Amino acid sequence: MTRIAIDAMGGDNAPRAIVEGAVWAAMEYNIPIELVGKLYDIERELDRIDQEGIVVSVGGGMLPPKRIKVNTKSLDIKKTQATEVIEMGEAPGQAIRKKKNSSIVLAVNSVVTGSSDAIVAAGSTGAAMGASLFGLGRLPGIERPAIATVLPTMKGPLILIDSGANTDCTPEMLFQFGLMGSIYAKSVLKIENPRIAILNIGEEAGKGDELAKDTYKLFDENKDKFNFIGNAEGKEIFLGNCDVVVCDGFVGNVALKTIEGVARMFFYMIKKELCQDFLSKLIGILVRPVLKKMYSKVNYEEFGGALLLGVKGITVICHGRSTAYAIKNAVKVAYNAVEAGVNKTIASYYGEKE
Amino acid sequence: MTRIAIDAMGGDNAPRAIVEGAVWAAMEYNIPIELVGKLYDIERELDRIDQEGIVVSVGGGMLPPKRIKVNTKSLDIKKTQATEVIEMGEAPGQAIRKKKNSSIVLAVNSVVTGSSDAIVAAGSTGAAMGASLFGLGRLPGIERPAIATVLPTMKGPLILIDSGANTDCTPEMLFQFGLMGSIYAKSVLKIENPRIAILNIGEEAGKGDELAKDTYKLFDENKDKFNFIGNAEGKEIFLGNCDVVVCDGFVGNVALKTIEGVARMFFYMIKKELCQDFLSKLIGILVRPVLKKMYSKVNYEEFGGALLLGVKGITVICHGRSTAYAIKNAVKVAYNAVEAGVNKTIASYYGEKE
Repeated sequence: MTRIAIDAMGGDNAPRAIVEGAVWAAMEYNIPIELVGKLYDIERELDRIDQEGIVVSVGGGMLPPKRIKVNTKSLDIKKTQATEVIEMGEAPGQAIRKKKNSSIVLAVNSVVTGSSDAIVAAGSTGAAMGASLFGLGRLPGIERPAIATVLPTMKGPLILIDSGANTDCTPEMLFQFGLMGSIYAKSVLKIENPRIAILNIGEEAGKGDELAKDTYKLFDENKDKFNFIGNAEGKEIFLGNCDVVVCDGFVGNVALKTIEGVARMFFYMIKKELCQDFLSKLIGILVRPVLKKMYSKVNYEEFGGALLLGVKGITVICHGRSTAYAIKNAVKVAYNAVEAGVNKTIASYYGEKE
Repeated sequence: MTRIAIDAMGGDNAPRAIVEGAVWAAMEYNIPIELVGKLYDIERELDRIDQEGIVVSVGGGMLPPKRIKVNTKSLDIKKTQATEVIEMGEAPGQAIRKKKNSSIVLAVNSVVTGSSDAIVAAGSTGAAMGASLFGLGRLPGIERPAIATVLPTMKGPLILIDSGANTDCTPEMLFQFGLMGSIYAKSVLKIENPRIAILNIGEEAGKGDELAKDTYKLFDENKDKFNFIGNAEGKEIFLGNCDVVVCDGFVGNVALKTIEGVARMFFYMIKKELCQDFLSKLIGILVRPVLKKMYSKVNYEEFGGALLLGVKGITVICHGRSTAYAIKNAVKVAYNAVEAGVNKTIASYYGEKE
């Protein structure tokens, strides 16, 4: 049985939202869970959930909350004590070496020892990456692990890789990101023959900075192995014309957070406009289901978390602001990645087994 | 009198939308114009406008079109013959050297000879940049010109610089971009003491790639001269907490086009959701004014075009898809930049006069 280890102490809303999301996933998808964190906090949250249920708020407060009743004792939930927590401000490398009993280090350890099969973490991204890389090790042949984020487009989902793990990259690294993203798209998102593009400032082959130009050449030389479709501009990626978009972690992270910023501004503006007078308030009530539907399509919570690809194991990195709903979905992402054997496929590309 | 030279042949909708926008600006703002392009085409468009007026379509087709009556003969419009046109696909450097009678080269020439005071161009960005740099020259002390784009935020306008002129940058270049953007913000957008931030993947000082880290140091050393507020993430720039956001042209261009892509996806989704059945169509009609208002706030057309800063003259670079409305606003941007003496202020920072 595939079990998912969850850092119960990571994220702005931890431990409450994390434990709730974990319980929710265990109930809804029947996925075995291992909660790693301060046992006192975990037990307290589980007791509270048994009494109060999980109060579900989807859609950024645009919907009235819903209560789900749960008996946590009927679910397959392991609890593992972790006496330390790595905070957001700490230098990740130092923190994971110093805090050997931190929730994230022990969550990774659960996968190393075989107690669990994947990690879900909403705390410091650097710490989750560092602990995973240090604890699990790199997949053979992979130079650097990268973060693959799933984004909505006008048509289907899109994988943006790297969305923040590596700030200064070589063409070879970007090439590997494309390979890993493509395998993820195929095995988890079930996209046949995923279309890979380089995120660039123009479509023509000679466009972009030195990195983009050299990466283009590398993909072009290997286009018999992939469905490489060339360069894609930021405005095109949402049309749904490609499945995997490759870039360095600096550009990817800026793009990702810009998307978040624009989306937030959009909903802010709509809310503001629809609260000005009686008529617009009335329109607001009518338009709410439409907005809700849209919000659910662009909401990061739906995709739960981003996959750290290139390590010998599955780590799903969640948004720091993750809600219970986001954590529930992240557990599902982790579960699917394990079941699909993403790592085995990546490793087999380099002629080695995981 | 400040006169604006316009490349009548540049852009997807040229010459029609360009001539219409130019006429519209001449009429609405009383700004003298110089149309540079194939005289036959320009005359034909002016005749058509005298007969049909300008059909105005704002809001991406979300509003019914409006007709404005004009007598172009009553307006101050110079016409200058240019027998060649630089196409979008051409290599800019080569094209501006070869096509000395192209509309963009001659539009720049009009500023060099003193016939006009600024250039508005919606054709190839590379050609507009190249022709401006080659024809006008760099401002003393400035290493590389950069493109400053004005973006909407939840509070006020924001300048993103560089948004596409330079793909591989040094910290010194980014520092100068900040200086130029700050002067633009102050003199044209009338922002007192503009807050400058570096576009980065985290707020802390040590965050980002090598370029971002070194640029941070440079700004920090000179913080007595500017209102440097540190790093800003992509999600924060729309909150309206900074006025000038500095990045290299690759990152800036990706961010800009991503914003465009997300905005387009939103309006696409909303339109789609509001066309599904009778009730949602009805809601659609009610919500239209709200969307119109929102659209006008995020629509690039409102800002007309981006300013090329660092050359000895004013060049406003417009979107290739520019409508007449966008061109009208771009003429206004160019006019304001000339009147505000942006270049003089930049040059004076380095102790020299323009």
